[in-house]
Amino acid sequence: MSCVFCAIVSGEAPGIRVYEDDDYLAILDIRPIVRGHTLVVPKRHTVDLTDTPAETIAGLVRIGQRIGLAARASELKADGNNIAINDGKAAFQSVFHIHLHVAPRHSGDKLSFAKGLVVRRDPDREETGRILRDALAGLPD
Amino acid sequence: MSCVFCAIVSGEAPGIRVYEDDDYLAILDIRPIVRGHTLVVPKRHTVDLTDTPAETIAGLVRIGQRIGLAARASELKADGNNIAINDGKAAFQSVFHIHLHVAPRHSGDKLSFAKGLVVRRDPDREETGRILRDALAGLPD
Repeated sequence: MSCVFCAIVSGEAPGIRVYEDDDYLAILDIRPIVRGHTLVVPKRHTVDLTDTPAETIAGLVRIGQRIGLAARASELKADGNNIAINDGKAAFQSVFHIHLHVAPRHSGDKLSFAKGLVVRRDPDREETGRILRDALAGLPD
Repeated sequence: MSCVFCAIVSGEAPGIRVYEDDDYLAILDIRPIVRGHTLVVPKRHTVDLTDTPAETIAGLVRIGQRIGLAARASELKADGNNIAINDGKAAFQSVFHIHLHVAPRHSGDKLSFAKGLVVRRDPDREETGRILRDALAGLPD
């Protein structure tokens, strides 16, 4: 299996799951820029904006919005979120299975955000996953 | 009128329009990071992910995807695009009327992208607007 996200979707590769339904999976980024940095992927493999149906992208952002709201409501106490799709290698896409980034942010975290772009680690990923799952479960529909 | 995007939507403030329909407007960013940097805004004022309906965000990304495809197909010859929503001041949101960024990218443009984060200008905005409008008009539905 050459696509790491397809391998995670199928269960052949590990991933800390934040959300899952029939069509989408959200997992913690293995190299997070900030704590709670989550990737939402469609289970069906497509590459980028050129081959992904508009309704699939709508689904990605619907889930991404809920994860952003959960990050605000959770113990992570996010003050905001960067939501992004990197479409193409030229735009920093590194896994060629389309995905939406959700990066929870905090007021005044600009320096730690910059550091996170280099360091990219979370000392307690399991706990971060639990926090986001619990907050998502507590959101209104 | 205190919201600059509401003023552009109503025609009270200028903006180079790339796309418009009943519910959305896309304009060139007045301080572009790259050539063709476009903002998609809902005409109805909301602030961020906390108060914007999921279907409105789906509409923003539907249009953002088409602008990204247009940037690839156009004379701008983009190789990819960064698509982003900055949700909250902590996430670098600077106009508090929700908007989606589309930033066309080119292979090997990392240094000019970094420079663009500081310089943020387009020497021929009118021409850039024309190029994107023409490419959008030429896209299949």
